[in-house]
Amino acid sequence: MNFKITHNCKTTRARVGELDTPHGTFETPVFMPVGTQGTVKAVSPEELKDVGVRIILGNTYHLYLRPGHEIVKKMGGLHQFMNWDRPILTDSGGFQVYSLAKLRAISEDGVTFQSHIDGSRHFIGPKEAIRIQHALGGDIIMAFDECAPFPADRDYIRKAVQLTSRWAEQCLEQDRGDGQALFGIVQGGVYSDLREQSARELVRMGFDGYALGGLSVGEDSETRDRVIRDTLPFLPEDKPVYLMGVGRPEDIVEAVAHGVDMFDCVMPTRNARNGTLFTQKGRLVIKNARYADDDRPIDEECQCYTCSHYSRAYLRHLYIANELLVYRLNSIHNIHYYTHLMDTIREAIINNGMDKFRENFYKRREDLE
Amino acid sequence: MNFKITHNCKTTRARVGELDTPHGTFETPVFMPVGTQGTVKAVSPEELKDVGVRIILGNTYHLYLRPGHEIVKKMGGLHQFMNWDRPILTDSGGFQVYSLAKLRAISEDGVTFQSHIDGSRHFIGPKEAIRIQHALGGDIIMAFDECAPFPADRDYIRKAVQLTSRWAEQCLEQDRGDGQALFGIVQGGVYSDLREQSARELVRMGFDGYALGGLSVGEDSETRDRVIRDTLPFLPEDKPVYLMGVGRPEDIVEAVAHGVDMFDCVMPTRNARNGTLFTQKGRLVIKNARYADDDRPIDEECQCYTCSHYSRAYLRHLYIANELLVYRLNSIHNIHYYTHLMDTIREAIINNGMDKFRENFYKRREDLE
Repeated sequence: MNFKITHNCKTTRARVGELDTPHGTFETPVFMPVGTQGTVKAVSPEELKDVGVRIILGNTYHLYLRPGHEIVKKMGGLHQFMNWDRPILTDSGGFQVYSLAKLRAISEDGVTFQSHIDGSRHFIGPKEAIRIQHALGGDIIMAFDECAPFPADRDYIRKAVQLTSRWAEQCLEQDRGDGQALFGIVQGGVYSDLREQSARELVRMGFDGYALGGLSVGEDSETRDRVIRDTLPFLPEDKPVYLMGVGRPEDIVEAVAHGVDMFDCVMPTRNARNGTLFTQKGRLVIKNARYADDDRPIDEECQCYTCSHYSRAYLRHLYIANELLVYRLNSIHNIHYYTHLMDTIREAIINNGMDKFRENFYKRREDLE
Repeated sequence: MNFKITHNCKTTRARVGELDTPHGTFETPVFMPVGTQGTVKAVSPEELKDVGVRIILGNTYHLYLRPGHEIVKKMGGLHQFMNWDRPILTDSGGFQVYSLAKLRAISEDGVTFQSHIDGSRHFIGPKEAIRIQHALGGDIIMAFDECAPFPADRDYIRKAVQLTSRWAEQCLEQDRGDGQALFGIVQGGVYSDLREQSARELVRMGFDGYALGGLSVGEDSETRDRVIRDTLPFLPEDKPVYLMGVGRPEDIVEAVAHGVDMFDCVMPTRNARNGTLFTQKGRLVIKNARYADDDRPIDEECQCYTCSHYSRAYLRHLYIANELLVYRLNSIHNIHYYTHLMDTIREAIINNGMDKFRENFYKRREDLE
C-alpha cells in the first residue's frame, strides 16, 4: 500500500493525500460509508459511485456471523459478493464484540461472545480476525483490539492498551491476502498518556496505517478533540490516520484540521432512514408538517439524484407512508452530502487552508427556512 | 386517446395494439406495475424504465387520503410529483373502498367510508372520483364502480350492476383534464348474463376503453376464465380491454388469448418483498437454505440488473439479514419478468400465434434446480 501526501494545509495540520489499494487509488481526507452486512443500507453500488464514494467499510463481526466469511470467500470475496469494485476496508470485529455481542469473556487469546442474532457462542481473537478478513478480501484490514467501555478507569484502560499491543503483534504475524494493508488501532481511552503509549508501541511494530479506536463511545466532543490532538503527534506523518466511527460533519471538519485522513460513520445512512437530512444550512427533519407542500428539493444547492428529481413534499409523503423508496432517496442525499463535504475540504486544504473553510462551514449553519 | 390494433393472433383472440396517451404510446398487451402511493414500492422510475415498463398504475383511494390530491396537484400532478414521465392509469378508488376501508355505507351518490389509516370519515362518489383523478392527472382514468363482495347473490350483483351503470353515466358527464381517457368498468360478479348486461350498458354510453372489475376477489381460475371469455364478445373490438388486478403469469397468458389488452397486479412487487421470485421455470423462494452458497443468478436466462450482478447466495443473505436493498433487487427482477413476459407474448402474437406460446410456457415450468 502506497500513501503519498500531496498537499499540506497552510493554516492547520490537515493534509491531502493519495492512497493506493488493489482496487484503485483514492484521495484523502476520505469518508467511508458503512456497509455493515455486505450492503450500504438501501443504496446500490452504482448509486454509491454516482455520489462519489471511493471506499466503503465492511463489518467483520456481522459478515462472520452472517452469511459467514467462508461463503463470502466461496462467492469470490466481498467485492464480488456485493458487486463493488472499488476499495473496501474491513474492521476487525473488536468494536462490535464490545458493543453488540452478549456475554463477552476476554482472555489472552481473544474474546468469547454470544451472537446478537441467535445467541450462538463464538470466539474471535487476533488470529481469527485476520483469517476472517483475509477470506473477506478487503483492501485494508484492521488489527483486532480491545475496545474498552466508556467510562473505564485508568487501570482497566492501561491493561486494554497492553492487550491490544500484544494482539497487534499477533495480527502482524498472520498471513494476509496479496496487497491487503493492515492498520493498527490505537487505544487508551481518554487518557492522553496511555494513547501516547499505545501509539508508540504500534508504530514500533510498523503498520501500514493507524486508527484511533475507542472514541465516539460516549465521551464529549472536547475530550475527543483533545485525545485526537494529543495522539496524532505520535503517529508517523507518512502513514494514513483513520478516526473510527466519527462522525458528525463538524467532528470531521475538526479532526481533518488535526491531520486525520479517513473516517467512517453510520450517521449519513442511519439518519437518512430516520428522516434527518443534512444540508449546508443544518439538518432538515423531513416528516415536519411544514414540508407537506414544499416543492423545493432538500437542499437547493445540492446536485444529488434526490435533489435533482424530488421535492420535500414527495419525500415527506413517502416517509409518512413508510415507502421503501424514501430510505434510498434520503440515503443518496446524505451520503452525497458527506462525499461533497470531503471534496470541498480537500479543495480548501489545497487552496486557502482549512481555517477559512471552517469559518464558512459554521457561518452557513443557520435556521432552515 | 387513439387505440390501433396492429396484429391479430392466428390461433386465438389475442391481439397486439398501440395506445396513444399524452405521455407517449405503448404497445399492448401491456402489464402495469402498481404504484399505490406515488411509488412502485422499492423501485425508482429509472429502474422501471430500464426493465421496460411503459405505464404504471396509481391508486386514487390512497393518494386521496395521503398526501391528498390537492397536494399532488399543487406539486404539478402525479407525473411530476413522482418523477415519472410515461403514462399513468389511475383507478377510481372503487375497489379500495370495498377492500380496504372500514364501515362502508353505499348510497345513490357514492360511498361513505372510514380511512384505513386513521379512521377518519370520507365520501367518494362518481363526481368525487373523477375530480380526484382530474387533479392527479393520470393519462387514463377509471369510472367509479361498485365492486361487490365475493361471494354475493345474484340480486345483490344485479343491483350493483345497475348502480355502476348510473355512476358510469355521471362519470362521463364530469370535466376531465386535456387528453385524459376514461374507461368504464364492467361488473356482474360471476354471472355471465349480468356481465353482458353491464357491458352492453357501458358500451352504449361510449367509453375510451373497458375494464373487467370485480374479479380476482376470491373466485377460482375456471370461473374467472369463463367470465372473461363470456364478457369480451360484448365489448367493441376497437377499444382496449383491461382486466383489473390480474394476476399470475398463467392468468395473464390465458386472458391475453381471450383478447385482453391491459393488466395490473401487485404480485411481482409484493412477491418480491416476500422473497418469491419468478423464473421461466417457476417460482424460486430465495430464503431456502439450498441457495446459501449458490453463485448463480435468480434466472440464468434473465437479462435484468439483478441477474446481471448478483448471486442467489447474495440475495438470500440480504433477505435473511432484512437488508433494504433486497426488496429493490427482487422487485427489479420480478417486474422485468412481467415486462419480458409481455414482450414475448406480443412477439408470439405477431409471429406464430399464442397456442404455440402457451404450450412452451407451460412446458418450461418444471422443478427449479
